[in-house]
Amino acid sequence: MVQTLATREPSGPNVTTPIPGPQSLALKKKMDPLHQATSVKFFANYEKSIGNYLVDADNNCLLDMFMQISSLSLGYNHPDLVALLATPRFISATCSRPALGSFPRHDYPNTLKNALISVAPKGFSSVQTMLCGSSANENAIKTAFIWYQSQKRGGPPTEEDLKSCMTQSLPGTPNISILSFQGGFHGRTLAMLSVTRSKPIHKVDIPAFDWPVAKFPRYKYPLEENVKYNLQQDKECLANVEELIVERKKSGRDVAAVLVEPIQSEGGDHHGSPNFFRGIREITKKHGVVFIVDEVQTGGGGTGSFWAHDSWDLDTPPDIVTFSKKMMVGGYYYADHLKIKEAYRIYNTWMGDPTKLMLLEKAIEVIKRDNLIENVSNLGTMFQKGLRELQRTYSSKMLNVRGLALFSAFDLTTAKLRDQLLEKCLANGLHAGGCGEAAVRFRPALIFSNEHAEIALDTLNKSLKMI
Amino acid sequence: MVQTLATREPSGPNVTTPIPGPQSLALKKKMDPLHQATSVKFFANYEKSIGNYLVDADNNCLLDMFMQISSLSLGYNHPDLVALLATPRFISATCSRPALGSFPRHDYPNTLKNALISVAPKGFSSVQTMLCGSSANENAIKTAFIWYQSQKRGGPPTEEDLKSCMTQSLPGTPNISILSFQGGFHGRTLAMLSVTRSKPIHKVDIPAFDWPVAKFPRYKYPLEENVKYNLQQDKECLANVEELIVERKKSGRDVAAVLVEPIQSEGGDHHGSPNFFRGIREITKKHGVVFIVDEVQTGGGGTGSFWAHDSWDLDTPPDIVTFSKKMMVGGYYYADHLKIKEAYRIYNTWMGDPTKLMLLEKAIEVIKRDNLIENVSNLGTMFQKGLRELQRTYSSKMLNVRGLALFSAFDLTTAKLRDQLLEKCLANGLHAGGCGEAAVRFRPALIFSNEHAEIALDTLNKSLKMI
Repeated sequence: MVQTLATREPSGPNVTTPIPGPQSLALKKKMDPLHQATSVKFFANYEKSIGNYLVDADNNCLLDMFMQISSLSLGYNHPDLVALLATPRFISATCSRPALGSFPRHDYPNTLKNALISVAPKGFSSVQTMLCGSSANENAIKTAFIWYQSQKRGGPPTEEDLKSCMTQSLPGTPNISILSFQGGFHGRTLAMLSVTRSKPIHKVDIPAFDWPVAKFPRYKYPLEENVKYNLQQDKECLANVEELIVERKKSGRDVAAVLVEPIQSEGGDHHGSPNFFRGIREITKKHGVVFIVDEVQTGGGGTGSFWAHDSWDLDTPPDIVTFSKKMMVGGYYYADHLKIKEAYRIYNTWMGDPTKLMLLEKAIEVIKRDNLIENVSNLGTMFQKGLRELQRTYSSKMLNVRGLALFSAFDLTTAKLRDQLLEKCLANGLHAGGCGEAAVRFRPALIFSNEHAEIALDTLNKSLKMI
Repeated sequence: MVQTLATREPSGPNVTTPIPGPQSLALKKKMDPLHQATSVKFFANYEKSIGNYLVDADNNCLLDMFMQISSLSLGYNHPDLVALLATPRFISATCSRPALGSFPRHDYPNTLKNALISVAPKGFSSVQTMLCGSSANENAIKTAFIWYQSQKRGGPPTEEDLKSCMTQSLPGTPNISILSFQGGFHGRTLAMLSVTRSKPIHKVDIPAFDWPVAKFPRYKYPLEENVKYNLQQDKECLANVEELIVERKKSGRDVAAVLVEPIQSEGGDHHGSPNFFRGIREITKKHGVVFIVDEVQTGGGGTGSFWAHDSWDLDTPPDIVTFSKKMMVGGYYYADHLKIKEAYRIYNTWMGDPTKLMLLEKAIEVIKRDNLIENVSNLGTMFQKGLRELQRTYSSKMLNVRGLALFSAFDLTTAKLRDQLLEKCLANGLHAGGCGEAAVRFRPALIFSNEHAEIALDTLNKSLKMI
């Protein structure tokens, strides 16, 4: 049976079965012997989903404020993206996938310019595409290592380096490291698990690099009532970062880069202040360490700016900014001094995917045309205000409303209560995400509107009452 | 200017400029400040490319026996794939990309069945999708580590494991390892670089895990004239593998898995014999070590069988088989006993890409309908015979013709001569690949025909004469 695509948003959510419903449960049973299915929440019908509304396999229609773990900027089946599939350019990119590092499409420089370069963070004019957030971060730290060693040597690898690296010994295989933060999340490949420190279930049983981890601030809310405490947090964490860099250097295991998220998302939506990040920029500059900002979850407009670090007011930009999710393709921007001269040091077969870059090119056109960043910024103020009102009403269970525009969150007093709230929200037609120990996070699409925000706040109110 | 898609193959190659030509050079200059371009050979026009023919940005038309580093099974713009883009199912998969681990498409179990499961290697009925070869291998070794530790413990992680892994200490973060082979290639993330041992430029300046590396056979050709020597190679390499496993276990740094390619491709198209691989299967079974076969380059039909390891005649299948490239999506098949019970241990945002799986589903339908595996097998015999004839004619420079069906290669006496030959071939309209020190490799699409093979052999003859 051929389905057609939904083209108009419904007027509101509509839930008629428990979630997961009988269809989802049957599909899960069918998938389980074929492919891991333990983490599946429900199956979705993406032909029927449209805009801000996700339709599941049981025909339940949810207002989606999680958007595939923060990865859809224009929601479901946006008409401008749909139209792209009929073009010979998109067809050939789909049916003739290139090995981008060796035989790129003739229109690739232009697509890069229209897509990634046109929204590059301040101070960046070069980008490297990859496939996902993990490969973005993996290659970002490789770039940092390569730069760090070439600085140390004062030039390209020597014969001795090239020889010794084949037996993985010094000097070609250096014992240098990446500094990351408690509660941070950067992906799940082995090196990324070595810098990811959010949850045991990600890390247990997997060998890791012996790399240092620093404290990340844990603020008290509301911020304006806890200025002194929060500043002290910044101070302690920054001292910890510098101490680790100095200590590691003394023992010949230099920190080549500091890797940090603007908002620790998977870890629980823990924010760092502009003051904290300016401090990191200062310390890394002082010690010749690469400063990598992981904007995989924060990048792409959800924070009311294309990049969350725009709000830090840095004197010198970060050295590398990594992205994926809402950017549709993984990758990283890098500062001019990090450019690698030798071929095949950053390389793999696909190195990205032109179809995703074409979708991003179109999405950015829509975001600019429809003033979607401004929209997110305005709605963010309204939505956070609504959340704070709910917090006043339900102050015995709801805490710490926080956010940058629509990229917002709050805590429940316990993990159990958080899980209950998410369940009630689903039953009432609102899809939000959990993160950290007891947080609820919101990651709506950039096409979210005032009307959606009102439905969401009403549903939250109703659901909070029920727990 | 809107281009239309080419629909018919030309009668033969046609080269009118040097390669890279002026358009490619201009595009490279344009791309260099925006995105790394050092490894770019030439830019291609994928709208004009069709079937076995790749058209570059200067309108040169090449018979392509490299196919984007062995990654296109149906060549360029195959009409059955092109038709797929007009379906609502494909459109919604493109414009509403799911977080597959949590909210898969309602048709995903079926697509998995029609695509990956329908061509599963003997003994496998479960698969895990990923995005590329590196992430396939990264998650395959994670699966091996998780199984190895749970066997050792006799159960799931304990409280102590979960606690200690957060500080990356024993017992939660174990000091266990993967054994790989000299000359092997498994990708370029940090853990993959620790098992990749083909070329210094991939590895230099990047920290690595201290994991063991064993010898891989280096056979003399023709095989039938060097039986004794080659058997001795197998024997020595197998002894080395077992020795390393025993030694590591003694020092508490157990080998959890052996990771090996059927044909070391990037490393120089070095083959292992069925006897060698049967030996590895025996040793890994004896020592309780996971046996992972990396079929990223060999899988998908180019060797005259869907999986190169089909030819080994194993008593017990491998424990894991990884894939990517011609399979269009990365991933791995895993044996039933490796199934992981806990959610979120193997997980990430995208975990694959339904659009690629739908393309693969269609490609497999075409491969079966058009008997393309049989085609590759038959043509392989003919093509290798032709290569051996050329070797007799050019015996002073051309050596060691070898292959499995069309997945074939030969060596030149020097790297310089190899590079010259590849250049002459390009100038004469044939695109082949280099690998290892002085090898030429052929990776044509499965739609390669007798006529293409004849053009290729003629062009090789002409080009060999010129060097």
